Amino acid sequence: MTQKLSGIAASNGVAVAPAYMLVDPDLTFDKKTISDADAEKARLHSALDASIKELQQIKAVAEKSLGSEEAEVFEAHITILQDPEMIGQIEGKIDSDKVNAEEALKEITDNFIAIFEGMTDNAYMQERAADVRDVTKRVMSHLLGKNLPNPALINSEVVIVAHDLTPSDTAQLNRKFVKGFITDLGGRTSHSAIMSRTLEIPAVVGTEDATANIKQGDKVIVDGLDGIGIVDPSDEDVTTYTKKGDDFAKQKAEWDKLKDEASVSKDGKNFTIAANIGTPDDVAAVNDNGGEAVGLFRSEFLYMDSAELPDEEKQFQAYKKAAEDMHGKQVVVRTMDIGGDKHLDYLPLPEEMNPFLGYRAIRISLKQPDLFRPQLRALLRASAFGNIAIMFPMIGTVDEFKRARAIYDEERQNLINDGVKVADHIDVGMMMEVPAAVLIADKLAKYADFFSIGTNDLIQYTFAADRGNEHVSYLYQPYNPSLLRLIKKVIDSAHAEGKWAGMCGEMAGDQVAVPLLMGMGLDEYSMSATSMLQTRSLMKKLDTKSTSDLVDKALDAETNEDVADMVKQFMADLK
Amino acid sequence: MTQKLSGIAASNGVAVAPAYMLVDPDLTFDKKTISDADAEKARLHSALDASIKELQQIKAVAEKSLGSEEAEVFEAHITILQDPEMIGQIEGKIDSDKVNAEEALKEITDNFIAIFEGMTDNAYMQERAADVRDVTKRVMSHLLGKNLPNPALINSEVVIVAHDLTPSDTAQLNRKFVKGFITDLGGRTSHSAIMSRTLEIPAVVGTEDATANIKQGDKVIVDGLDGIGIVDPSDEDVTTYTKKGDDFAKQKAEWDKLKDEASVSKDGKNFTIAANIGTPDDVAAVNDNGGEAVGLFRSEFLYMDSAELPDEEKQFQAYKKAAEDMHGKQVVVRTMDIGGDKHLDYLPLPEEMNPFLGYRAIRISLKQPDLFRPQLRALLRASAFGNIAIMFPMIGTVDEFKRARAIYDEERQNLINDGVKVADHIDVGMMMEVPAAVLIADKLAKYADFFSIGTNDLIQYTFAADRGNEHVSYLYQPYNPSLLRLIKKVIDSAHAEGKWAGMCGEMAGDQVAVPLLMGMGLDEYSMSATSMLQTRSLMKKLDTKSTSDLVDKALDAETNEDVADMVKQFMADLK
Repeated sequence: MTQKLSGIAASNGVAVAPAYMLVDPDLTFDKKTISDADAEKARLHSALDASIKELQQIKAVAEKSLGSEEAEVFEAHITILQDPEMIGQIEGKIDSDKVNAEEALKEITDNFIAIFEGMTDNAYMQERAADVRDVTKRVMSHLLGKNLPNPALINSEVVIVAHDLTPSDTAQLNRKFVKGFITDLGGRTSHSAIMSRTLEIPAVVGTEDATANIKQGDKVIVDGLDGIGIVDPSDEDVTTYTKKGDDFAKQKAEWDKLKDEASVSKDGKNFTIAANIGTPDDVAAVNDNGGEAVGLFRSEFLYMDSAELPDEEKQFQAYKKAAEDMHGKQVVVRTMDIGGDKHLDYLPLPEEMNPFLGYRAIRISLKQPDLFRPQLRALLRASAFGNIAIMFPMIGTVDEFKRARAIYDEERQNLINDGVKVADHIDVGMMMEVPAAVLIADKLAKYADFFSIGTNDLIQYTFAADRGNEHVSYLYQPYNPSLLRLIKKVIDSAHAEGKWAGMCGEMAGDQVAVPLLMGMGLDEYSMSATSMLQTRSLMKKLDTKSTSDLVDKALDAETNEDVADMVKQFMADLK
Repeated sequence: MTQKLSGIAASNGVAVAPAYMLVDPDLTFDKKTISDADAEKARLHSALDASIKELQQIKAVAEKSLGSEEAEVFEAHITILQDPEMIGQIEGKIDSDKVNAEEALKEITDNFIAIFEGMTDNAYMQERAADVRDVTKRVMSHLLGKNLPNPALINSEVVIVAHDLTPSDTAQLNRKFVKGFITDLGGRTSHSAIMSRTLEIPAVVGTEDATANIKQGDKVIVDGLDGIGIVDPSDEDVTTYTKKGDDFAKQKAEWDKLKDEASVSKDGKNFTIAANIGTPDDVAAVNDNGGEAVGLFRSEFLYMDSAELPDEEKQFQAYKKAAEDMHGKQVVVRTMDIGGDKHLDYLPLPEEMNPFLGYRAIRISLKQPDLFRPQLRALLRASAFGNIAIMFPMIGTVDEFKRARAIYDEERQNLINDGVKVADHIDVGMMMEVPAAVLIADKLAKYADFFSIGTNDLIQYTFAADRGNEHVSYLYQPYNPSLLRLIKKVIDSAHAEGKWAGMCGEMAGDQVAVPLLMGMGLDEYSMSATSMLQTRSLMKKLDTKSTSDLVDKALDAETNEDVADMVKQFMADLK
C-alpha cells in the first residue's frame, strides 16, 4: 500500500529507486553456558572466516569504485580478524569460562576497545578502537545469522534509508548508484543534509520513522524539493514525480547557463554570490558553479584533520592555495572556531556544561595568542598571493574586536619589519553571530571592515535553542521578525559606515530568505557551492523596490509562518 | 606580611576575624602490601572509633546550634560506621588481600557507593551514597592522621575561607559565629553569593586563590562592599576597615527607617520595589524589609523539594499561603522553570549537549500539559485568596505565548464552570529572557499583561556565555549598551500598550544599574529581600529627568566599563 512520509527538504531533486536499508540489525544475544567448547570455537572460526571473506569482497569493490585510499580501512579490519593475540584470548575465554562464542567475543573485544579508548591523547588508538568495534559487529552478525548492511557493495541504483548518516557511512557510498537519501533524524543543517547538497543527491531528512516504514527493496520516491517520501508509489505517482524530477533537472540546466554572468537584480543592482568552503580543494567547485568569492573558509578543518597543531607554514600553504586558485577573487578566512561542538585531541579544553555558551572561537584566540598569532601570520603571508580577507568568529563586544585587531596589527608590523611581503590592504571583519554584537553593530561598524552574519549560531542564541537538539528544533525560525530585525540592524549599521555586510549561514542560500535579504540590501550571499546558480537565477527575477516593500511588511509581522507565507505569496504574484 | 586579595563583592558589609579553612586535606595514599593483618585491622578500628566519637561531638553541638533536624545527618553517619556488613567486608579485604587499611577501606566503600549510585531512580539511595562518601572521608583522615574541617564545631567568630560553598556546607554553619566568607570560585549570581546576601553576611567571591594564600587562624578582613580581602592586616587596616563596617552598619540602620515609606524618586515618580522568593516562608522577610510585592515566586522549588510531582492541592496551598501572607500585595508566580540546570529525579528529561539551550521551562509546559494544567489550576484557585499574577518563563515567540495563554484561559473557564471561585482579573505576563522575545516585544505587548526581565538568562543568551562558566565570566556585562538597548526596548514596548515592565534578575538590585533602570522608566524592581531598602534609599536621591539624560549617554556608549564609569561619575556629581 502506498504510504507518504513527510520530512525536511534537505537537497533538491527527485529520485525513484528501490530502498537500501542502511540500518544495523539487532545484535543482542543471551549469555549461555556451553558444554562443548570445541564446537563453540568452531562456530567462532566459521564466523571469522565468513567475515574475512566478506571484507575481502568489499575491499575489492571499494578499490574500484571509491579508490584505494577508501579501501584501506577494510584491509585494516581483515588484519584485526587475523590477530592471533585477540583470537587466542576469545578462545581461552570459551575454554575457561564455558561461555558461548558471542559472550566470549563481546567480553574480549570490549576489553580491547576500553584499553584503546583509554589512550585519550592518542588519535591513532582511538581509531583502532573504532575499527575493533566495527569488526566485532560483523563477526557477531555472522554468529547470529544476521546480515549487516554493506553499502560499499551496492551495485545498482538505490535510495539509501537510514536512521541518520554519519561521515563514515557516506564515505563508503558510490555516488553513481546512490540516487537519494531518506533519514529519520536531522534538520537542514545536519551532516546528512549538508553532505547531500554537496553531492547533489536529492534528500529528505527528519522523517522520524522512515526506517520503521520502509523495507529493503521497497520502491521509494524521494522528493527533495518539498520534503516528501513515498513508499510503494502508484504508477501515477511515479509518472508525476518523474516529471517533477525532469522539470527540476531542466531548470538546473538553465541555472548552469548563468555560470559566467553577474549576480544582478532585475533593476540592475549588483550583489556578490559566494561559497562556504572547508578546504582549499573545495575551490574547484566554487569556480565550476560561478562563485564570485569565497565568503567563508572554515579554517578549523585545518586543525581538525591534523594529529597536531598545524604550524604556520602548513596553514600558509593552505591559505595561499585557496587564494591563488580563486584568481584574485576574495577569500574570506574565518579564524579558528574551535570549542562548542568541535574538539581537538591535541588541544585540551575545559569540560563544560553548555559548550555552545562556553570557551570557543575568538574567546580561545584572545586567551591563547600562541594559537592565534601563527594563524594571523600565515594569513598575512598568504595575502601576497591573492585577495585574502580575515574575519573573527564569536565577537560579542567592541573590546573583543579591538583586542583581536590589535594582535593582528602587531603581527602585520612584525612581518613588515622582517621584510616579508604582505598585501597593502586586507579587509579585517567579524562574524555577526552573538546577539550582543548585533545590538551594537553601529559601534562595531566603526572598527570592522565588514560584517558576515552567521545565521546558524545567531539563530540558536537569539532563540536560546541548540540547533542540534530535536526537542527545541521548532525554534529554528529564520523568518521570524525578531531575527529579521537583527539582520536588518547589521546591514544598516555596516552601510552607515560605508562598510559591506554578508551572510555565510545556511540562510544565505534559502530561496524564501533571499528576497528578504535583497530587500534589506545584503551585499554578499555565501552558501553551498551547489546553491549559487539557483540563487543567481532568483535574483534576476527580483527588483530591490518591491523586495524592500516586502521587508517592511515582514518586519512588522508576528511569526515565522506569517513571513514565510508573505514571501510565498509575493513570489506567486510575480509569475 | 599583609596581603591583599581582590574578588567580586558578593554581599555588603565588612568583617574582621580569624580564618576558618573549610578546605578538604589531601587524602591520597599509597596501596601497600602488609604482613600483619591484625595490626592493620587495629588501625582501622581506632580510626572508626575516633570518627564515631567526633561525629557524636558534632551531633551534640549541631543539635544545639542548628536544631535537631540538621543534626540527624550525623546520626546517619554514625550508623554507617557501625554497620557490621561493611566493616566485615573491609576486614575481610585486609585478611585476604594483605593490603593496608586505607586501600581496603577505599575498595569496599567505593563498591557500596557504586551500588547505591547505580539505583539512579531512587533518591533515597543516592543520598546514602553521599553519606558513605562523607564518612569514608572522615575515617580516611584519621587513618592518615589529618584533620577534616568540622564547620559544625565552630564556636568563636570566624571568616570562612573555601574553594566554593555548597548548600550542604552552609547548612552546617552557625550564623552566630560566621562573620564573613571568602571563596576562590563564584560570581555575583553563584550559590555562595546569593546565600551570603540572604544571610546578610559580608562576602567576597571569585578571588581565585584565597585558599592558597590564607592559613587556618590568619587574621582576615572581608570587605564585601568593594570585593577586597586582606590577610594579616596592619593595625591601621583594621581601624580603617572596622570604621568602614561601622559606617555601613549605620547606613543600614538609616535604610531600615524607610521600611514603611513609598518607593519614590526625588521628583515624585512612584516605583514598586519587590522581592524574589523561593518558598511561601520567604514572605516574612519580604514584609520585614518593606517589600511592596513579590516580583518573582520561583515555583520550581515546590518541585525540587519533593520526591514526586507536587499535586494541584499541594501547589494550591503554597500559592494561597504566599498570597495571604502578602495581605493583598501582588505575588507574581513564575510557572515551572525545570530543565537547564534544574532536574527532578521523578521527571526524566532528555540528556542534552547544551541544557541551557534545550528543553526547559515553558517548552516543557507546552509539550507536557499534564504538568502545566494542574499548576495553572492551583494558581487560579489561589487567586481567590490574594493578589496573584502569573508569568511564563522562556517565551521566545508570539506563538508560544498565545498557546500558553490559551491553556490558561481553558483552565480558568473549566474552574468557573465547576463553580470554583477565582479572581475576576489576574495579570498574565511573561519573562523577558530570550533575546528573540525582546526583539518583538512590541508584538508580545499586545498579548501579555506585563513583562518581567530575567537578566541572568537574558545576559547569558545575549552574550552567548554560560553564567556558570568561569572561562567566559568576563562576558557577564550587565551595563553593556547592547543589553541596555534590549532592556529599553522591553520597557518602551510595554508602555506603548499601557502595560507594566519589571525586572526580577540580579540586576534589579544592583546599585549601578538602578539609576539607568529608573531613567528608562522601569516600573517594578524585584530583588533579594535584603537589598530592597538600600534601593529605596537610592531612588529617593535620583530624579527621572537626569537619569533619563544619563540613559541617553549610556545607550550611545561602546562598552560595559564606559557605562559603569559614567554612572559612577553621575553618582559622584550628585553629592
